[in-house]
Amino acid sequence: MMAPGAPASGEDSLIARYFKPLATDPGAFGLTDDAAVLKARGEDIVVTTDAIVEGVHFLSDDPPHTIAKKALRVNLSDLAAKGATPAGFVLTLALRAVDETWLAAFARGLGEDTSAFNCPLLGGDTVSTPGPLMISVTAFGRVPHGKMVHRSGAKPGDHVVVTGTIGDAALGLDILRKGRAMAALVDDAPSRDMLIGRYRVPEPRNALASVIRAHADAAMDVSDGLAGDLAKLCAASGVSAVIDVPSVPVSAAAKVVLAASAAGIENLISGGDDYEILCTVRPSALEEFMREARTAGIAASPIGTIVAGVAAPKFLDAMGKELALTRTSYSHF
Amino acid sequence: MMAPGAPASGEDSLIARYFKPLATDPGAFGLTDDAAVLKARGEDIVVTTDAIVEGVHFLSDDPPHTIAKKALRVNLSDLAAKGATPAGFVLTLALRAVDETWLAAFARGLGEDTSAFNCPLLGGDTVSTPGPLMISVTAFGRVPHGKMVHRSGAKPGDHVVVTGTIGDAALGLDILRKGRAMAALVDDAPSRDMLIGRYRVPEPRNALASVIRAHADAAMDVSDGLAGDLAKLCAASGVSAVIDVPSVPVSAAAKVVLAASAAGIENLISGGDDYEILCTVRPSALEEFMREARTAGIAASPIGTIVAGVAAPKFLDAMGKELALTRTSYSHF
Repeated sequence: MMAPGAPASGEDSLIARYFKPLATDPGAFGLTDDAAVLKARGEDIVVTTDAIVEGVHFLSDDPPHTIAKKALRVNLSDLAAKGATPAGFVLTLALRAVDETWLAAFARGLGEDTSAFNCPLLGGDTVSTPGPLMISVTAFGRVPHGKMVHRSGAKPGDHVVVTGTIGDAALGLDILRKGRAMAALVDDAPSRDMLIGRYRVPEPRNALASVIRAHADAAMDVSDGLAGDLAKLCAASGVSAVIDVPSVPVSAAAKVVLAASAAGIENLISGGDDYEILCTVRPSALEEFMREARTAGIAASPIGTIVAGVAAPKFLDAMGKELALTRTSYSHF
Repeated sequence: MMAPGAPASGEDSLIARYFKPLATDPGAFGLTDDAAVLKARGEDIVVTTDAIVEGVHFLSDDPPHTIAKKALRVNLSDLAAKGATPAGFVLTLALRAVDETWLAAFARGLGEDTSAFNCPLLGGDTVSTPGPLMISVTAFGRVPHGKMVHRSGAKPGDHVVVTGTIGDAALGLDILRKGRAMAALVDDAPSRDMLIGRYRVPEPRNALASVIRAHADAAMDVSDGLAGDLAKLCAASGVSAVIDVPSVPVSAAAKVVLAASAAGIENLISGGDDYEILCTVRPSALEEFMREARTAGIAASPIGTIVAGVAAPKFLDAMGKELALTRTSYSHF
């Protein structure tokens, strides 16, 4: 664990300077100990862990403050999907060398998010690596006992609902890599910036956690692509789904890229890094779910229906024709 | 989080095959979800995180099952020092590529330890990296509310106590690097193997957790070197210490190396990777502490005394002369 104390140690003084201000929870002991304490007040503690690696989940020249935010937010997104309220996180930072300018900006970005999401740093570890930067976060949330929302609860007849818009982050990455989306938006810097922002800094839907807990039969966040993640949710629930592709929410910028044929809708629904919430909602609860999502300020779109069976989910176009997906999600291996 | 489900994904099927058998806690949901649940039964949850990196904390040709054990044990050691009972852990595995033979051996070693220490896998993340292997573990333990043992509780007059023997792991690493300890033990393969084993597979002192909780004013594990870690404990407690170097417990193999002048005692007390427990015990509790440690089957040695002041701890030789330590511990930067 991070724990300053021996003034001679470079690692320790760095930690004290940059990370201690983020350790606002009393259970973090100001990062002065080997471990933190999560007080358990009768709720269940939800635990999730996701790592991001330079060149894989973020680019070498991404700004350090957005890298920090992404590392935390991909985990906050999991907590939101599980219906949990953030309680804190631990951080493992594998760095090639100490670049204090980089570290200061990283800590600043992280600090903005620990405040914004009320999710204090509880501890961590910094290690040196000759390889790419890697940031591993384990985040904790609280739910009332037994109330974590699972992948496995989807039932035939449930509405499939997704938050926000899908595919923006994949287009943002394509733009950063000077792909075809770049050409389609060559004269539209604001749209390019929006899409790049969606790749670099996801918007976890933590404001929706209690709504999901109240009304969703099953939920997960969309991290590896909507199509593949829906297939995982269906497999875990022992069901299938039929999705109306024209109902999949797409941003105005993404529509421009689609109109220019610089990407197909299949690229958007199999692209990763959305960090939106995919959930299934009982028909009787849909109206209430949609109302509460609006109140929480989060766009939510019903995009299809859970059906019986174990077939892969079907994605139907406006003519009712099934979309051929050559890949459904991102896999590391 | 690790979560199999989509049969098409290479990452997911690997996880199912090798790691699902280790996820024996009901709160792990068989690794089928995005998050795990730690049930809170009124105790505090102690959280610690430590990562190990190829070439830094283990060597490229270390056997995969010992790498797995080390990754978990360095965290179990923190839980032991804090007086906590293991409850589970999450794992982030950054791999260059999938080598199934390697992964099978890694999972086998990890599985042996999840059983031996009753610390089930709750979830994790696997990511690809072009760089060195890295394994990050966040481990959880339980302590009665408010009973975590801190670094900061040491009081003047406390006995300084250390478990096991000190410096073996540093010598083991020296042997693996064909250093001078190798020459000193050229005809003594069993001693070499013992020292190498102490580097590769630390022996966390979890059996001592309740004894530490009952009798120690302050505790931490010795991971970066006894001298440096004692300095950290003293700094956190606002005290100093005087250590009787001849009382520092040293293995028979280490004595041979010392006798051959292939290492000095200062190398042993500033070497890292011991994963023994350093704690301070009230004089009135020492006898009981030592008796209970014996009952738990763990060697414990009083090595000195906490004194008032803020000076760096003093290490005195048999003549009462202060040992000059050029470095007190390992720092990554």
